[in-house]
Amino acid sequence: MLKTEKIVYAFSEGSGELKSLLGGKGAGLAEITRLGLPVPPGFIITTAACRKYFESGNRIWPELEHEIRAALAALERQTGRKFGDDTGIPLLLSVRSGAVISMPGMMDTILNLGLNHLSVESLAAETANRRFALDCYRRFIQMFAEVVLKIEHHRFESILEEAKKRQKVSLDSELDEQSLQQVVESYLALVEQETGQGFPSSPVEQLIYAIKAVFESWNTPRAKVYRQVNRIPDDLGTAVNVQVMVFGNLSADSGTGVAFTRNPSTGENRLYGEYLLNAQGEDVVAGVRTPQSLERLAQEMPDIYKQFQEACRTLEEHYRDMQDIEFTIERGKLYLLQTRTGKRTATAAVKIAVDLVKEDLISREEALLRIEPAQLEQLLHQRIDPRVVLNVLARGLPASPGAATGKIVFSADRAQAAAGEGERVLLVRPETTPDDIHGIIAAQGILTSRGGMTSHAAVVARGMGKPCVCGCEQVNIDLTRRVMVLGEREFPEGELISIDGSTGKVILGETPLIEPSLTSEFRELLGWADQRRRLAVRANADNPSDARKALELGAEGIGLCRTEHMFTSPESLPLVQQMILAANSRERNLALEKLLPRQREDFKGILKEMAGFPVTIRLLDPPLHEFLPNREDLALEVNRLKWQGADRGKIHPKETLLQKARSLAELNPMLGHRGCRLGLAYPEIYRMQIRAIFSAAAELLAEGFPPDKIRLEVMIPLVGHLPELIGLRALIEQTAKEILESNGYHLDYLIGTMVELPRACLIADQLATQAGFFSFGTNDLTQTTLGYSRDDAEAKFLPFYLQQKILPQNPFMEIDREGVGALVNMAIEKARRVRPDIELGVCGEHGGDPHSIEFFHQVGLDYVSCSPYRLPVARLAAAQAAIKKQKK
Amino acid sequence: MLKTEKIVYAFSEGSGELKSLLGGKGAGLAEITRLGLPVPPGFIITTAACRKYFESGNRIWPELEHEIRAALAALERQTGRKFGDDTGIPLLLSVRSGAVISMPGMMDTILNLGLNHLSVESLAAETANRRFALDCYRRFIQMFAEVVLKIEHHRFESILEEAKKRQKVSLDSELDEQSLQQVVESYLALVEQETGQGFPSSPVEQLIYAIKAVFESWNTPRAKVYRQVNRIPDDLGTAVNVQVMVFGNLSADSGTGVAFTRNPSTGENRLYGEYLLNAQGEDVVAGVRTPQSLERLAQEMPDIYKQFQEACRTLEEHYRDMQDIEFTIERGKLYLLQTRTGKRTATAAVKIAVDLVKEDLISREEALLRIEPAQLEQLLHQRIDPRVVLNVLARGLPASPGAATGKIVFSADRAQAAAGEGERVLLVRPETTPDDIHGIIAAQGILTSRGGMTSHAAVVARGMGKPCVCGCEQVNIDLTRRVMVLGEREFPEGELISIDGSTGKVILGETPLIEPSLTSEFRELLGWADQRRRLAVRANADNPSDARKALELGAEGIGLCRTEHMFTSPESLPLVQQMILAANSRERNLALEKLLPRQREDFKGILKEMAGFPVTIRLLDPPLHEFLPNREDLALEVNRLKWQGADRGKIHPKETLLQKARSLAELNPMLGHRGCRLGLAYPEIYRMQIRAIFSAAAELLAEGFPPDKIRLEVMIPLVGHLPELIGLRALIEQTAKEILESNGYHLDYLIGTMVELPRACLIADQLATQAGFFSFGTNDLTQTTLGYSRDDAEAKFLPFYLQQKILPQNPFMEIDREGVGALVNMAIEKARRVRPDIELGVCGEHGGDPHSIEFFHQVGLDYVSCSPYRLPVARLAAAQAAIKKQKK
Repeated sequence: MLKTEKIVYAFSEGSGELKSLLGGKGAGLAEITRLGLPVPPGFIITTAACRKYFESGNRIWPELEHEIRAALAALERQTGRKFGDDTGIPLLLSVRSGAVISMPGMMDTILNLGLNHLSVESLAAETANRRFALDCYRRFIQMFAEVVLKIEHHRFESILEEAKKRQKVSLDSELDEQSLQQVVESYLALVEQETGQGFPSSPVEQLIYAIKAVFESWNTPRAKVYRQVNRIPDDLGTAVNVQVMVFGNLSADSGTGVAFTRNPSTGENRLYGEYLLNAQGEDVVAGVRTPQSLERLAQEMPDIYKQFQEACRTLEEHYRDMQDIEFTIERGKLYLLQTRTGKRTATAAVKIAVDLVKEDLISREEALLRIEPAQLEQLLHQRIDPRVVLNVLARGLPASPGAATGKIVFSADRAQAAAGEGERVLLVRPETTPDDIHGIIAAQGILTSRGGMTSHAAVVARGMGKPCVCGCEQVNIDLTRRVMVLGEREFPEGELISIDGSTGKVILGETPLIEPSLTSEFRELLGWADQRRRLAVRANADNPSDARKALELGAEGIGLCRTEHMFTSPESLPLVQQMILAANSRERNLALEKLLPRQREDFKGILKEMAGFPVTIRLLDPPLHEFLPNREDLALEVNRLKWQGADRGKIHPKETLLQKARSLAELNPMLGHRGCRLGLAYPEIYRMQIRAIFSAAAELLAEGFPPDKIRLEVMIPLVGHLPELIGLRALIEQTAKEILESNGYHLDYLIGTMVELPRACLIADQLATQAGFFSFGTNDLTQTTLGYSRDDAEAKFLPFYLQQKILPQNPFMEIDREGVGALVNMAIEKARRVRPDIELGVCGEHGGDPHSIEFFHQVGLDYVSCSPYRLPVARLAAAQAAIKKQKK
Repeated sequence: MLKTEKIVYAFSEGSGELKSLLGGKGAGLAEITRLGLPVPPGFIITTAACRKYFESGNRIWPELEHEIRAALAALERQTGRKFGDDTGIPLLLSVRSGAVISMPGMMDTILNLGLNHLSVESLAAETANRRFALDCYRRFIQMFAEVVLKIEHHRFESILEEAKKRQKVSLDSELDEQSLQQVVESYLALVEQETGQGFPSSPVEQLIYAIKAVFESWNTPRAKVYRQVNRIPDDLGTAVNVQVMVFGNLSADSGTGVAFTRNPSTGENRLYGEYLLNAQGEDVVAGVRTPQSLERLAQEMPDIYKQFQEACRTLEEHYRDMQDIEFTIERGKLYLLQTRTGKRTATAAVKIAVDLVKEDLISREEALLRIEPAQLEQLLHQRIDPRVVLNVLARGLPASPGAATGKIVFSADRAQAAAGEGERVLLVRPETTPDDIHGIIAAQGILTSRGGMTSHAAVVARGMGKPCVCGCEQVNIDLTRRVMVLGEREFPEGELISIDGSTGKVILGETPLIEPSLTSEFRELLGWADQRRRLAVRANADNPSDARKALELGAEGIGLCRTEHMFTSPESLPLVQQMILAANSRERNLALEKLLPRQREDFKGILKEMAGFPVTIRLLDPPLHEFLPNREDLALEVNRLKWQGADRGKIHPKETLLQKARSLAELNPMLGHRGCRLGLAYPEIYRMQIRAIFSAAAELLAEGFPPDKIRLEVMIPLVGHLPELIGLRALIEQTAKEILESNGYHLDYLIGTMVELPRACLIADQLATQAGFFSFGTNDLTQTTLGYSRDDAEAKFLPFYLQQKILPQNPFMEIDREGVGALVNMAIEKARRVRPDIELGVCGEHGGDPHSIEFFHQVGLDYVSCSPYRLPVARLAAAQAAIKKQKK
């Protein structure tokens, strides 16, 4: 007969490397056992055994039962306790599943296995606590009956409720010994009634049943669905972990606690945790007694504390990361029940990673990989103290990160006025328009009831690094009565609320905020990231102060300067509207002439700030009607004027505005008259912008600014056909030449295009012949490739799609690799074939998303561009992408 | 010395095959000369000579001059006339360019070359018409001076104006001999003044100059631009045609005329044309004298007529097509000046092609290739008599072909009422909504001032085969005053107008219409097409009567049955609105239950009509707000109700409607909550439709309809992600099973998807695993791939883009092969790799466009689907595509 494979491993026989055989939990317990740390002993039935169990028609075959019995005997020898003992402390076991890939909450667990009518009494005697023993017993019966015997949970709960009613108490923990005795008897009766048999009193029989149940829990419908959703193979099977139970409530020199090897909120390298003497883990969690800090343990049980300190050091050195450890002391002996990598705040994560490098425990690369890049952004903004309990009123879209507190104001003018008097205010509007800019500047944050992640409020707020919650549809803002209505409650102007733009929460009253802190560790870590990454990082910035902020946060250029934001400043907007209403191109030019010096000053400021770094300026992109007021509002306004008989006979300016707004209105503005389509139809607008750009450069040169410090890139938006690019390229070259040559200057600059339409990707080889650079506009490319209007989708069907798992993630947050990514990849290959040195970047919002950055690194882009506050995220993500790709 | 290549060809030395050497015109003249037909003699200087001319620095080299002189001498011998003769009729020449690829209007021509102060007098004497001779002379001087000497046109025109003023006449033809004499003198003086030299009087010198000028006209800026736009290589060069001038006005037995070898408007096989005796070609064109019909020539000059008849027969047999011939009779001798393939009406085109097959002149394949498929559609609709002069008031979009005449009505109710009284009316609206359906049915045609080719009016009218002009923005429709305003003019209700939906014209008053005529030749030709094509043709049809029409016109199935059209019938729309306004899914189901029987009856009727043919039914596609009234109108209405104090305190139903319309409103509905996104969010809607479909089939089966005659294909719109298809496929299968099994039936049917998003093309291999068929929705695929909202683009920038040649054609009419076509191709390849037998079709509007059909044939689709009235076009285009591909 062939030697059969080993199917049961004692903890001391396994190791972390056997994870696929022993499951995650089992391998972990084996690993720390091997380190010589005090772990309650136990054994693991392998995943191979599970698979064989299914193959054998769900039967425990003789060899398996034999090995289980042998392992059990070994445990009895090792602990000196007996399974089902009715004299000393009985050997009690926990039986847990242990899948290779963690499936939290999906699989079953049974505790205190081994109790029966005899051993419960010896447990009572040994602990001198019959109530405790009975409580263990009734819990065990319930778990076993539910998991193994499939008796429904509510049947046990109603017995428990009955008992509490009888004893006139409300909590389980208030039930006395007598009540518990009754509960146990009722439970056993229920089991007998439901199964037609008595509760199995033989511990070995209990164990065999429990193992079978754990195996079978692999195939419950919810486990199957979970695997389907998470693409976990169905044929892996689960291991079963059988471990000796230890008790922290046996005596005064027993106890239980949890500890982090370093401070999980600051990262400080010092044990941090709490414990309770003569207690079980539950007691710590239940909060009935107040736990002591670990420092106290050092005084009360110095030997144990020292031993625990040693264990922590061993574990940290072994796992090379901060650990979160559960421990129990049973009659003066320390046991480690569990260790895992501890969760931590962003601040702590950064400090711990940097410290571990300095302690020579991990490499810089490992430190970089340890940080979740998205966490970094919170370090740059005010945030709500996580310890505070919040009174959350509503939830909107998390449109711009950071938190703010202030008094409600319903208009931009009031925001400005109140801020002028030193008040902290939140601007609350149904939606914002360019007319509200001064209010947005004055407010601490913005809350809107309509509009999505790309609405005016969201885009402007992100640019300013100001918190914003958008599209909070639960809230009804009644501007005529000046109240915010939320269900039955009304909030007048002046009421204090808070918003959290990172989560979308709207909170009642003031909340304590934590100021952003850029620690030295933070800077050090980003420095390492910069050395390691290949992708350059640029910022999306539209004015000199954003450019300055971007430089501070590590920008190596501006990847997207949106000239339309200059159009919406309070001073420029009336000129822009004048330009739009112009009856002919002469009038249009007059308005444009007045706009030109403003744009020139902005460009000059930005170029000066970004000396030596590339600055990509995009010519006007949005449709003209975006600069006009809302059409429905205008229609009502004009109607009102007519009813009031104002200016009877004359055409009111609002009516002219309405007519123009109507004639410019589009059914699908996203796919309408915008971008280069506008530039070709009204070349005077683009010509003004180009003149402003090159006049700015010329003025700098005149002031002695070195020419090689001006690195201009002029970008044409929404190109889909080659002639668009050819025509506008000629306009740029000719206008630039006129301005530069008339001043006797020479300047190298690039002309390129946004690639944001599927067609642009499909003809990227043609476009590359005429473009010095491409910048992928993945926002619009996602909208067109998927056929999703972002504003509509995020308000209407996207949440449903995400919840139903029709989409794996929001494609506007993380790039859709199969669709949009395939087009980007195709465009890169086509373009590089024609022009190998073409500069390729991305300026869509994905440029600041870590998963997307990994993709952009893989497909070979040169840079990503994102909002200034996402730069640290991008720098770290770019480094991680480089490291991961190299590892492959 | 090597023998140099021949560079001058007499007409009798060339042939049609030498086109690339002799140019198009020259090769043609050589060809008919070779046929032995009487052509005024001449010679051709080759394109090779032109190229060599440019290489030699624009110089006539000795060999060339030598050959020209030799050819000239040959002409003198052949005609018995002398170049610059001052005694008999002088030898006069025309000098014309002749490019290989025709460049109409781009190149220069000189007539009457050879005239000078001496020969003009002999011409005067021989013709006994000094005025005629002087007029020839002054025209020659002007042409020569403009073309060769580059003197500006207006300089000559002002001399001519001066002369007319002096003589107090207004037309050139009214100038008398004396005035012309003065004009000639002033012209000669002008030339001397401008060039510093006298006008070249040597005929040979004139010829050499003229040849140089024709060569050089190849490189004028307008010729270069023309070539660039039409992608004609710059290095082809032009040939020069030098031909003897003949005169139809020399005598009473001279004359000139034009003729078609068959009737160009009916196709009848009989000479058709007109002529004038003692006249020049100009006189026929100028209309000063009334030309005679050719039948008269048979009587007046029977020999000439017989000779001409023979020539016509020879030319038709040679060119194997109807010819359009210019001829001149000089002193009793017939000359053919030009022959070309004659333009003809669609009716004539069909008859001529079929007749030529019967006369064994061409094959059936050639006949099929002779017809422009797009022409066929006009044969199916009423059209305006082309001989009528129209008073065109305005132009809109040609939204649905055919013409109609009727009285203006401004509301659907009035249209219905007037039509009920036997009136013919045109429904004139700013735009139409589903509420207007009864008016559209009642009207002869529809005119709207807003909305594009896919607006409600356009789509509904096309479906009904009813003429429609859309988006006629010049027209302002004032519904309150019930007038249509056009500039200064106002048209009240009841005024008669006409529209031409094939051209977009709006015409004053009644116009005579030609009824459609499906001749036997038309049916015969389409029969040949059906034998030849590989692509199947299906129709887009939404009700039993459209299905019947489609069958009549040759449909082999329904490729797109839009269930939403059933939702907008006057009876269904209120139920649909009730369903949308439902507060919960119970209320929604109540409304759906009432809709179900209506849909079932429609499906039943369609399936019955299409017995044995596949019927592809698309589940609901448009967003729900499309079934609600316009939001701006509603807002004004609600406002009005509030001002009037109606129902104070109560919420008016219009206000509820407005609130719902607002909550459903989308910024970009084209990219919004529609198609399968709706079906997944409100499965009860799709479930009702699926139940209606399969109940219809079940009822038919119950009535004894044979199961194999029901070929159902259920189509899911707007799929972009695999889980959408999986989820809805399950819904269809389950619902179908419930209905069929409960009735004990079995039915084979297909489930498939529209492919209308770029992402769907990119993951076509995934989708093919779950789809029995794909139907490419190229309308939406064009919108998303190019980022064009069709309704906005066609009203805003598309006309400008087409005019500027940024786009080669309207991508919504002819498929964009580089962009959309590339995606279609990619999807086909991916899908067939996974499922080789997948059924692939197209149901976008491109399915009826001949160029697009050629592409669909090439990439291997199985069928195209189009509106019923496009079916003949599609059948012919599909045949042509098959023939062309085979030829390659």
